[in-house]
Amino acid sequence: MREIGFSDVDDIARGAGILGTGGGGDPYLGKLLAEAAITRHGPVTVVTIEEVPPDAVVVPVAMLGAPTVSQEKLPNGTETLTALRALEDATGVAATHVVPIEIGGMNSLIPLALAAETGLPVVDGDAMGRAFPEAQMVLPTLAGIPTSPMAVADDKGNTMVLRTASNLWAERIARAACVATGCSVFTADTMMTGAQLPDGLVAGTITLAQRLGAAVRTARAAHTDPADAVAALVEGVRLATGKVVDVHRATTGGFARGTATIAGTGTELRLSFQNEYLLAERDGDPVATTPDLICVLETDTGEPVTTETMRYGNRVTVLGIPTDPRWTTPAGLRLVGPRYFGYDLDYRPLAQPQEN
Amino acid sequence: MREIGFSDVDDIARGAGILGTGGGGDPYLGKLLAEAAITRHGPVTVVTIEEVPPDAVVVPVAMLGAPTVSQEKLPNGTETLTALRALEDATGVAATHVVPIEIGGMNSLIPLALAAETGLPVVDGDAMGRAFPEAQMVLPTLAGIPTSPMAVADDKGNTMVLRTASNLWAERIARAACVATGCSVFTADTMMTGAQLPDGLVAGTITLAQRLGAAVRTARAAHTDPADAVAALVEGVRLATGKVVDVHRATTGGFARGTATIAGTGTELRLSFQNEYLLAERDGDPVATTPDLICVLETDTGEPVTTETMRYGNRVTVLGIPTDPRWTTPAGLRLVGPRYFGYDLDYRPLAQPQEN
Repeated sequence: MREIGFSDVDDIARGAGILGTGGGGDPYLGKLLAEAAITRHGPVTVVTIEEVPPDAVVVPVAMLGAPTVSQEKLPNGTETLTALRALEDATGVAATHVVPIEIGGMNSLIPLALAAETGLPVVDGDAMGRAFPEAQMVLPTLAGIPTSPMAVADDKGNTMVLRTASNLWAERIARAACVATGCSVFTADTMMTGAQLPDGLVAGTITLAQRLGAAVRTARAAHTDPADAVAALVEGVRLATGKVVDVHRATTGGFARGTATIAGTGTELRLSFQNEYLLAERDGDPVATTPDLICVLETDTGEPVTTETMRYGNRVTVLGIPTDPRWTTPAGLRLVGPRYFGYDLDYRPLAQPQEN
Repeated sequence: MREIGFSDVDDIARGAGILGTGGGGDPYLGKLLAEAAITRHGPVTVVTIEEVPPDAVVVPVAMLGAPTVSQEKLPNGTETLTALRALEDATGVAATHVVPIEIGGMNSLIPLALAAETGLPVVDGDAMGRAFPEAQMVLPTLAGIPTSPMAVADDKGNTMVLRTASNLWAERIARAACVATGCSVFTADTMMTGAQLPDGLVAGTITLAQRLGAAVRTARAAHTDPADAVAALVEGVRLATGKVVDVHRATTGGFARGTATIAGTGTELRLSFQNEYLLAERDGDPVATTPDLICVLETDTGEPVTTETMRYGNRVTVLGIPTDPRWTTPAGLRLVGPRYFGYDLDYRPLAQPQEN
């Protein structure tokens, strides 16, 4: 058990931005929400999975929508608590802990803000070990833990509680409601007992995010390469260092989709994304695919570059980071592998480190 | 108080098909559902609004979606009860009565089926006095009675409970969920007390439907004009008698939209619809507009012709029927007048009877 205070949020936001592989919502906005909540209500208690009692009631909370939109249409600040309370009302069970559904961008930080507001502890972990674009893409799906009941709240005062036939139906219906209400809603779902956490979560990812964020900050101060500092902590593989020369982006079906091209020394790396970076091809050859993490950092500062903030002319470094091993099982790849996203290729593990 | 038995359903279905102004879902399917439920569980008790105690809990149940789809994707038969129970669970209040949300097509008959199944009485009335395509287009909206909480159930086992900031948001979110789950869902919403019924309902419309259905049946047996028999009961105005020479239809945004042209003696009547017939223009001149009822009958048999069953070559008679006066107030016309549906014209009352 430890405490997260105001001064910890900056590192966590930076590290979660890296692990978010370009998605998970704008980490800057999440940072502001978490910092404001901690300033108002005091620090947040963080517990490890091992410290959670087996009968605890752990609720992931998150933003669901297109990151594009969440940057422009700010939350009114009450949605997450509204969603949590709607879930508690529907189930008649009170949450004892909150946890991130994904360790990525804003969605890593929203649970910290809610924890500060409610006084509930946060579990150090998340249900993906990265960010993914769809609600059913969580380890609980692999473990047979339902997303439903799922509470959804928007910024207009609308709430809904879904009870769905599958986790995929939760995604489909919540996504449709999200699009209808302006492409950014807040969710509380996938209620888990403490005993289910080892199956449902990747352990320690809030702390990992904080270490990554601190490593980047330290490297920057020491004028060493921030990407090297990140890679050293997470077995990262450098995929490209270069300049963004092309970005295509469209917000369709409730997602931010597109491609970006990074020109390196004599090579081009093309990234494809649906909220998150999902595929990296070097000169036409895939060198990293979902579910491995494809992370883009500003070369100079090590700051994460999301699929939304990437712009022509950015100088960036792209890292590949191995995913949680549960995602590369056959069942994991059916849920989040390249073919699910429509790419006509199989998952291939990251190649050994090499410079280009 | 009276009973509705198996032998009453046929007339009610025919009359509700007429009052449904082309929409409300396939009356034949509704008839089968109601007849099957009455065969299995016995007759249904129908009470007038005056017979409902002020503290009664009255729940409208309905199908929401595109009639096109409901004809092809049949309900599994449990959706309405699932929606009712979800609403009761969410509110902690048990329904004492059910009622049609609209007196149109299938949606007039679904409450009869549910009443037979649950043993609850049906209130003789409905919340529109016709059918309209969108969920907020009910007298309760004019009376300040919320649609929310709204329970929605589909054929796949998905349910949701919405609590919305307005009745329009209930329509928008439920419609989005409807489209996501296959364009046909079942709803329980707009929970009313007995005391609210005079404001929230048009009285006696189940009985009116039955009388209309019986009048058509009798006229047919007597070889008199069924449309005249209908017109005599409801101050109907004959707008056209002729042949359908053109039908355009598309299922978009969760609705069946289109136009149909009827060639009469030297004139053409063009009907525009969104689930229901909303506008009738004779040689370019509007002769009937929403919220007045535009009803299409087979000329020979008097059987109602829905926007879905209308086909090239049908011989039809088109009647205009005056709407409930609450719909032609300024607030009523803002909700269901021609301009809401995108027609660039004001409501005009039906002209006096004339033959063309």
